[in-house]
Amino acid sequence: MQLVHGGDWAGFQTEYGYTPLDFSANVSPLGVPQGIQTAIANAVKIADRYPDPLCRALRQAIGKEENVPPEWILCGNGAADLIWRLAAAQRPHEAVLPAPSFAEYEAALQSVQCRVHRVFLAQEMDFSVGEDFLQAVDVDTDLVFLCEPNNPTGKTTSMRLLRRLVERCAAMGAILVVDECFSDFLEEPNAHTVRPLLPTYPNLVIVKAFTKLYAMAGVRLGYLLCSNPILLEKLRLAGSPWSVSSLAQMAGIAALQEKDYVSRVRDLIQKQRPFLSQGLQMLGLRVVPGEANYLLFQCEVPLLAPLRKRGILLRGCGNYPGLDDTWYRTAVRTETENRRLLAALEEIIR
Amino acid sequence: MQLVHGGDWAGFQTEYGYTPLDFSANVSPLGVPQGIQTAIANAVKIADRYPDPLCRALRQAIGKEENVPPEWILCGNGAADLIWRLAAAQRPHEAVLPAPSFAEYEAALQSVQCRVHRVFLAQEMDFSVGEDFLQAVDVDTDLVFLCEPNNPTGKTTSMRLLRRLVERCAAMGAILVVDECFSDFLEEPNAHTVRPLLPTYPNLVIVKAFTKLYAMAGVRLGYLLCSNPILLEKLRLAGSPWSVSSLAQMAGIAALQEKDYVSRVRDLIQKQRPFLSQGLQMLGLRVVPGEANYLLFQCEVPLLAPLRKRGILLRGCGNYPGLDDTWYRTAVRTETENRRLLAALEEIIR
Repeated sequence: MQLVHGGDWAGFQTEYGYTPLDFSANVSPLGVPQGIQTAIANAVKIADRYPDPLCRALRQAIGKEENVPPEWILCGNGAADLIWRLAAAQRPHEAVLPAPSFAEYEAALQSVQCRVHRVFLAQEMDFSVGEDFLQAVDVDTDLVFLCEPNNPTGKTTSMRLLRRLVERCAAMGAILVVDECFSDFLEEPNAHTVRPLLPTYPNLVIVKAFTKLYAMAGVRLGYLLCSNPILLEKLRLAGSPWSVSSLAQMAGIAALQEKDYVSRVRDLIQKQRPFLSQGLQMLGLRVVPGEANYLLFQCEVPLLAPLRKRGILLRGCGNYPGLDDTWYRTAVRTETENRRLLAALEEIIR
Repeated sequence: MQLVHGGDWAGFQTEYGYTPLDFSANVSPLGVPQGIQTAIANAVKIADRYPDPLCRALRQAIGKEENVPPEWILCGNGAADLIWRLAAAQRPHEAVLPAPSFAEYEAALQSVQCRVHRVFLAQEMDFSVGEDFLQAVDVDTDLVFLCEPNNPTGKTTSMRLLRRLVERCAAMGAILVVDECFSDFLEEPNAHTVRPLLPTYPNLVIVKAFTKLYAMAGVRLGYLLCSNPILLEKLRLAGSPWSVSSLAQMAGIAALQEKDYVSRVRDLIQKQRPFLSQGLQMLGLRVVPGEANYLLFQCEVPLLAPLRKRGILLRGCGNYPGLDDTWYRTAVRTETENRRLLAALEEIIR
């Protein structure tokens, strides 16, 4: 069975018998916050009950945090579950996507036989989304996915272009899904979000996740925001009613209390991203100036196998449309871990 | 938002401020086994990692328990997730279902615009599945769902008829999904399973869950068994790759060690089912002779509201095609709890 994503520590463990240092998954390197661990330990005692299918308490808590009414929130079994639900509920005929971008958009769209129009992002422009992306949206477009910051590039699009994109999608009758799963790692998350546009645009959907910021990828919890009650109800009915476990619901509520953890992670990433980027550049590698907790870089020397031998996982980007085997994505981790990656790379390249 | 299932303790809690005694969800009344609680507490420490999308260790453990190769197993975010995946992956045009039966079959089929042929089960025959169900399967049938024992009736179909059904589905080119989620509560689970037919019939799928027997409905874990590698791969690709949380994966492995817990639950149900059934009959109610951990009964007096006032949830069956508001499903719980339900019912009816 072919796996298309990073984060396959279990495959490594099966092969080598120990746990690798994982730069292939973009999660907080500070581990699961204690508050979340405690919340799950408490939740498990009453896990004989079915989860609340409406995630009432969790949606209240998210609504407060995001400053939107709880009625605008739908929770999912990770952001990926919501992406699949969007495709299943809307059954779009034609969709527009940037390339490269997160692989699950296309996987979900293909599962409903949707024609996918990939807008290739230019290497020379560091893979930024430009005017041509906007122009690709026309009257035939049903759905548009855009990841802000984009995965695997880490690049953001100007708010001006994003606003025009929302408007254009509305004018063309298309739903725009802005995936802000990594926006918490931006320098100013609140300055780069389409959230203020939600009340005006019922065709706008924002996808977010707890996975990355709170280091709880194994728990599975994401949510989406949308002001359109009909679309929300359609999405709710497009899959199993109990998709969000009660452990995830309690973990999410606890996560939103972890203010101190969040500043520590954010500070670490702000500091380590330039450190790692410079380290990669010192090795003569081209690094895309990403703004998230990961970096896309290019290297002509094959890296995956020699890094694996050294107990390190990296995300090879050969299976991203718009990239090839010379591109890699690395998570930004702690200084010690980043140094270990850089040292291993130096050994391999030099 | 309208909820169609039982188990909405959270809705009750929001309204009344305390937790009800829940007879509306069919789970083991003995609570989450300690071993599972410990496994989840351990798993949460490494829940910063993505779950293994292939559930390698869990599938090994299930394969040993079920005596099938791990390659025949696909795990899901509860059995309901797998039912939705079956509909999404197969996109059947026409399906055959018994009525009444578990509501998610029809919900999942409708989401892919499948025509649903309901075979109504006769009250006079205690809702058993008969020859007419077999005859309803023809060359136009793509998918057949059958729940053994059936939910909400608790009735089983003779193994002879089941074997003929598997054969007929094979001959007609239909996939047969036998949902054995409640089979662990039968007197002889190993005597009533189509598992031995798996190697011969690549069109046969068995769905099972950890939810009920191990009282872990809040954790979400189910699996399906099938000997057809092409169908399995299609199902795997019909949804998010990380649908099974790592907490659920570790909980499942731990659950399979809980042999003592399982005998205690099974003994309890074998003893309490006749006790509760007789108690209901003593109140003058018609009880369908179910064989699972729940009982379907009929009562002309409305029960839901007056039971709620007394802190008890029951499953009203008015929204099951083939039943009406006079039918109710109750879980079989501990003797003390069953007595409390019977006492409340006596107050209401008399």
